[in-house]
Amino acid sequence: MLNNTMMNIRIDKHLLDALREDITNEDISTNAIIREKKDGKANLLCKENGILAGIQVFKRVFELLGEIHFQTKFKDGDAIKKGDIIATLAGDLRIIMSGERTALNYLQHMSGIATYTNEFVNILEGSGVKLLDTRKTTPNMRIFEKYAVKVGGGINHRFNLSDGILLKDNHIKAAGGVKKAIELVREYTPFARNIEVEVENIPMVKEALEAGADIIMLDNMDIESIKQAVKIIDKRAIIECSGNITKGELYEISNTGVDYVSAGVITHSAPPLDFSLNLNQQ
Amino acid sequence: MLNNTMMNIRIDKHLLDALREDITNEDISTNAIIREKKDGKANLLCKENGILAGIQVFKRVFELLGEIHFQTKFKDGDAIKKGDIIATLAGDLRIIMSGERTALNYLQHMSGIATYTNEFVNILEGSGVKLLDTRKTTPNMRIFEKYAVKVGGGINHRFNLSDGILLKDNHIKAAGGVKKAIELVREYTPFARNIEVEVENIPMVKEALEAGADIIMLDNMDIESIKQAVKIIDKRAIIECSGNITKGELYEISNTGVDYVSAGVITHSAPPLDFSLNLNQQ
Amino acid sequence: MLNNTMMNIRIDKHLLDALREDITNEDISTNAIIREKKDGKANLLCKENGILAGIQVFKRVFELLGEIHFQTKFKDGDAIKKGDIIATLAGDLRIIMSGERTALNYLQHMSGIATYTNEFVNILEGSGVKLLDTRKTTPNMRIFEKYAVKVGGGINHRFNLSDGILLKDNHIKAAGGVKKAIELVREYTPFARNIEVEVENIPMVKEALEAGADIIMLDNMDIESIKQAVKIIDKRAIIECSGNITKGELYEISNTGVDYVSAGVITHSAPPLDFSLNLNQQ
Amino acid sequence: MLNNTMMNIRIDKHLLDALREDITNEDISTNAIIREKKDGKANLLCKENGILAGIQVFKRVFELLGEIHFQTKFKDGDAIKKGDIIATLAGDLRIIMSGERTALNYLQHMSGIATYTNEFVNILEGSGVKLLDTRKTTPNMRIFEKYAVKVGGGINHRFNLSDGILLKDNHIKAAGGVKKAIELVREYTPFARNIEVEVENIPMVKEALEAGADIIMLDNMDIESIKQAVKIIDKRAIIECSGNITKGELYEISNTGVDYVSAGVITHSAPPLDFSLNLNQQ
Amino acid sequence: MLNNTMMNIRIDKHLLDALREDITNEDISTNAIIREKKDGKANLLCKENGILAGIQVFKRVFELLGEIHFQTKFKDGDAIKKGDIIATLAGDLRIIMSGERTALNYLQHMSGIATYTNEFVNILEGSGVKLLDTRKTTPNMRIFEKYAVKVGGGINHRFNLSDGILLKDNHIKAAGGVKKAIELVREYTPFARNIEVEVENIPMVKEALEAGADIIMLDNMDIESIKQAVKIIDKRAIIECSGNITKGELYEISNTGVDYVSAGVITHSAPPLDFSLNLNQQ
Amino acid sequence: MLNNTMMNIRIDKHLLDALREDITNEDISTNAIIREKKDGKANLLCKENGILAGIQVFKRVFELLGEIHFQTKFKDGDAIKKGDIIATLAGDLRIIMSGERTALNYLQHMSGIATYTNEFVNILEGSGVKLLDTRKTTPNMRIFEKYAVKVGGGINHRFNLSDGILLKDNHIKAAGGVKKAIELVREYTPFARNIEVEVENIPMVKEALEAGADIIMLDNMDIESIKQAVKIIDKRAIIECSGNITKGELYEISNTGVDYVSAGVITHSAPPLDFSLNLNQQ
Repeated sequence: MLNNTMMNIRIDKHLLDALREDITNEDISTNAIIREKKDGKANLLCKENGILAGIQVFKRVFELLGEIHFQTKFKDGDAIKKGDIIATLAGDLRIIMSGERTALNYLQHMSGIATYTNEFVNILEGSGVKLLDTRKTTPNMRIFEKYAVKVGGGINHRFNLSDGILLKDNHIKAAGGVKKAIELVREYTPFARNIEVEVENIPMVKEALEAGADIIMLDNMDIESIKQAVKIIDKRAIIECSGNITKGELYEISNTGVDYVSAGVITHSAPPLDFSLNLNQQ
Repeated sequence: MLNNTMMNIRIDKHLLDALREDITNEDISTNAIIREKKDGKANLLCKENGILAGIQVFKRVFELLGEIHFQTKFKDGDAIKKGDIIATLAGDLRIIMSGERTALNYLQHMSGIATYTNEFVNILEGSGVKLLDTRKTTPNMRIFEKYAVKVGGGINHRFNLSDGILLKDNHIKAAGGVKKAIELVREYTPFARNIEVEVENIPMVKEALEAGADIIMLDNMDIESIKQAVKIIDKRAIIECSGNITKGELYEISNTGVDYVSAGVITHSAPPLDFSLNLNQQ
Repeated sequence: MLNNTMMNIRIDKHLLDALREDITNEDISTNAIIREKKDGKANLLCKENGILAGIQVFKRVFELLGEIHFQTKFKDGDAIKKGDIIATLAGDLRIIMSGERTALNYLQHMSGIATYTNEFVNILEGSGVKLLDTRKTTPNMRIFEKYAVKVGGGINHRFNLSDGILLKDNHIKAAGGVKKAIELVREYTPFARNIEVEVENIPMVKEALEAGADIIMLDNMDIESIKQAVKIIDKRAIIECSGNITKGELYEISNTGVDYVSAGVITHSAPPLDFSLNLNQQ
Repeated sequence: MLNNTMMNIRIDKHLLDALREDITNEDISTNAIIREKKDGKANLLCKENGILAGIQVFKRVFELLGEIHFQTKFKDGDAIKKGDIIATLAGDLRIIMSGERTALNYLQHMSGIATYTNEFVNILEGSGVKLLDTRKTTPNMRIFEKYAVKVGGGINHRFNLSDGILLKDNHIKAAGGVKKAIELVREYTPFARNIEVEVENIPMVKEALEAGADIIMLDNMDIESIKQAVKIIDKRAIIECSGNITKGELYEISNTGVDYVSAGVITHSAPPLDFSLNLNQQ
Repeated sequence: MLNNTMMNIRIDKHLLDALREDITNEDISTNAIIREKKDGKANLLCKENGILAGIQVFKRVFELLGEIHFQTKFKDGDAIKKGDIIATLAGDLRIIMSGERTALNYLQHMSGIATYTNEFVNILEGSGVKLLDTRKTTPNMRIFEKYAVKVGGGINHRFNLSDGILLKDNHIKAAGGVKKAIELVREYTPFARNIEVEVENIPMVKEALEAGADIIMLDNMDIESIKQAVKIIDKRAIIECSGNITKGELYEISNTGVDYVSAGVITHSAPPLDFSLNLNQQ
Repeated sequence: MLNNTMMNIRIDKHLLDALREDITNEDISTNAIIREKKDGKANLLCKENGILAGIQVFKRVFELLGEIHFQTKFKDGDAIKKGDIIATLAGDLRIIMSGERTALNYLQHMSGIATYTNEFVNILEGSGVKLLDTRKTTPNMRIFEKYAVKVGGGINHRFNLSDGILLKDNHIKAAGGVKKAIELVREYTPFARNIEVEVENIPMVKEALEAGADIIMLDNMDIESIKQAVKIIDKRAIIECSGNITKGELYEISNTGVDYVSAGVITHSAPPLDFSLNLNQQ
């Protein structure tokens, strides 16, 4: 999702805006210390075990500031350890120092999400249940966050309101019922789209199933109800299980027979992974 | 920081971009269900105790989508409780439903930061020590996050690299020492700026003090060293204490005599505060 | 797709850019004639029979220039006739005259597409075959053109490369075959997406079917081959028929049993529908 | 008009927006098939005889996505034939496949206009009458469309409302007559501008001539009236003939003695010229 | 040029950018003093005699910050005197105080240009010679500066390189002579454009005249040469006189028979006109 | 302030906008004369003695248009003389000629400010008093103008309303007095900021001093009052002297004992420094 193509047409703008957020007219501290171009090197040090995500974004932040040489033996998805030198930067020290915080803010946030997602994925391992993300992302950061989920082994649900259909409680209320809601969608967008419906209880499960929902999302249902729903649906629809799911509940759900578990927590509550950027002594 | 003036010249653009991130061509699910303007109401429900932050941002997201009536008895900084109806929206249901996730993403993130900050502030209460934020913010979200810190009772450190001077380890290395670094800054920007220097040990504290630093940041020092530094500095400079500080360490530090504690964790690791938006039954 | 919500977050920017394209510093001719605000009225006259599309866009162009009163008894999708007064504008004549060409350029283009699409739809009437559009749209005009297709009775295929999967000849070549291509996609994006595959002959139809394609697009196949493909597929996949289809071929295809016909011609070659805007004599 | 200079300051933005229109978060189909950089080649094949226009724009679309090698022996304005290999692309297949549709949409549209314009120009050949375009262009596509007109042998009328004066029926109504309109313009913009006036009948021709119009546009007048107007004007003003002119009428008009014929049809109704981009077998 | 239409499509963006330049995250001083909406009034006081220009721009700066009531009895072009209360603002004091400097920066700059231009125009009064501006404007401020020239009684030369032809010394060198340059332009842009040529001596005047230049610009020629050129041209071309002309030389030139004098100094060296904005005592 | 880092993230956008202001669709004159890439050279000639500022900006304007070779032996801050060849450009003549005016407009404006500032600085030489700029800058040009001030030997006051506190007459009125204003600011922004207060008479000086102002700005006070204020303040606050100060008054003020003099005139009224760009004969 974040290959060079996307970097060029979408990511650069976000990075430039972040740099402008952090430098409105100049980096006073750095420019005061370094008056003319002065080459140097810095190491990117990993300070916590985790999964690396965003190393190309980290690199690009500096490239947007000027010419820089970047070396790494790691790539996104790699398991990294406290103490690993992840990458080396060489070039004008002003570029390195002015870009440091912004570049780290991306890397720490993305690696944090990949790491946290990976912990969830590990709990699900062997169960056949897959982990989905949600639209509970930080505003304007979705492309970075959904990418990090993928790096961490999660699977992306729809990207936004335009590329997937999910009928939630408010849609069903507005339509006047599950069946009516599904009919309206099929009529509105007849070409080959999957329809997902969020349900809260067994009667709604049945209604969704009869109306031909392709995916049924069990929202905030207890384990017993989930099991009952799985039995009723009986492979006739894909089953997603949702609702403020914590690591603790995850294992239990993984044995109910659902196909997917979705968790907002992996994007909105993942703690950052700690890195630092250290100048080599001159 | 987020009064109407800033909304008009800065915030709207961020909100529009977030809406465009979530709706590239249309909200299919909503437009399928609601074909023509259909008025309705929805309640914003608080699902966790905390501090409210971002209620005007929440409101504005919907206003950018169209005409909407918004009512609230709460304002940013209010302590809110699980079960409180924070606000009511009335207007075209398509506006309410298409804006829901984006508006909640802002509100939950900002209220999460305010709430988490407030927990830190409470620990420091009575000690005279004040809580500062850092530049460890989510890219392009700084204005929202620093505002939320303030709402939660924290104090904003510099906004970016252009409006304050902080000489960190890399600057000192590049300059060749604390003293040299301070001299270079004073020469570069002679008019009336405070100079803050990050130090890691007692000799550096002394050097910074002698060179006339206005603020000395004790970075990752142990409690004993902090106490020693406070004694040496003896009110001749403001003292900020920094370095991955957790709630646990906070109390101990609050009794060392430092003036400020800064914590990146309040912006980069605050869990979101849970809200939901529920359509009133028709 | 073009309700007020989208107008506010996406369309206005396009319209403003178009106005800036047409007015870099001022509308010399108009400003020379009308020096101060001077109210007047103008009628939007239909000069050809067709289907109206874009009347809200037409209106919005003027609103972006200033305060204007707009009245119409028509709405998008209405069949309109040569000689119909479609709408009346009242307000500062400079707004009316400076916005005229830009507003008409949108309206004529959109109504042209709706009208042309509708002619195709009429040919298909009764056959059960539905008309799809393509991504062969004018750069940066897709949202207007796909909307016009819908107004004319057509059905929108995917909006862009991010919200649907269509494996074309080049993808299949790069993957090394239909089956391999489908496998790669299923692995890459496991969550609930329909996969469409473009095929050029009967062996490819069989391969796509066996690999589990959800939609099979028959590209540039002759009528006999289409019929054979329909028989082989036997309702196990949705069938789309494609390839520079003209009105003449449409009727024939409509009797082959395919589900959809897609035609780039409805967006890239629809002639504009003629309108004019006439000032009422003072 | 579209030399490298303009590419750099104006065109790139349009192309990037078009790419973003077609790729909101990623090209799923391509990224699924090609996971890592994989070099390949593709040929741009001409599928219809015509005039090439936009080959540099076509190339640039890919360059904006990443590094690509482009070779061609053709240049804009060349007559091309069905079956010609117009250009070869070599580089990361993901760049080639993700840019394909957007690049073709520009090329087909621009070459279509150049080809169609050229057919009009050929009809006028030998008559001394020249073909002008109009402002009836697709919103935000004017720079591409006017350039294509020029490539096809047509001549550009004013680019927009700011760089030329044309008093149309509505201006004349608002001013209260041809003479008054011309006076107002001369007073408003005294420095060395040509004034063009649109007239609908012989009395208006005379009035425009007496008021000193530099260019007189005969709008929707019949052949006899045109001939009469030419005689009356007698070289004292440039004559432009306008009004939904089709190829059929063109020849007749070309013998009336007018200087220019303007036709909106060459920009708003030119059918696209067909090309395809084919991957070389691996 | 700066009527409401242009305000809406072009000026607002410039003003918003200027406000963002002056307020990156908040107006600390004002927000510290005024915590909640507090209504008040302020007078715009003229502190120097001159010509008013930009009063609508001044007003708009505040409107972009929020709701404000603005009253004035003056309009652009009015002669104003030291001590005049030009306008009154009423509304939230934070809007008034945060917008003050930006609004004044526009008003003082524009009124300065109008006033300075007017002094030049007065010197030329009665001579029939008219004053032209140039493209020597402050980057991105041209629309404001050219408008101010017009308000001051000057006449606008071309707005930019796209809406007029002026062959300067470098063009003539590149073409290999005046005659060749004019021929190339006529061929390149055959439709009805005036061609202006810059000449430096009498032989070039003759060459330009013979080649059919519509406007001849006498660049940096002495009074005697100017007179000789006027005699040679003998009304067969419009004559513009140019070249770092000061007020002192202006009178002399006004009697040589040239049609226009152009002066970069009126835009790039006009001193600002002094105004202040004063809060009424509470 | 304008090192390459800032060029990349902030300056390029301003320069591109300025180029777009000057070239909306093409540089007709240049493109008519030079149809294909044609290499040539041009010299940048200094036509007035002064201080060079903006040479990197000048260069960058051309680089944004295309590939160009630029050579100079000068750098910003150098004293340059009439007749000096400042730089040489080599490359496609269309780049050189289309960028000429825009590049010169920046260079002349910036060098004008540096030169004018330097004259002020020279008057103050030896007195120990330093020259400050203000926020009286041309809208959206502040970064260029403040940089030029620095190049000319002046010192930058705050960049904008977000990075410094200055309580002016309107703030003091709104707060209800100097003391109250300072208290409000200290409470609002407790962390380590200097507070500057503008005073108009001796009682206000005393009040500001007692309230603990860090910097006291004496606004429009006569020489005697300034001397009295200096005595009262007695080094307990930094003293800035302000108020429409001309060169004439500067010397007198330089002997009063104030620390700084601020002058809006150096940014808003500096005459441009004259340069020209001349093509070498072919």
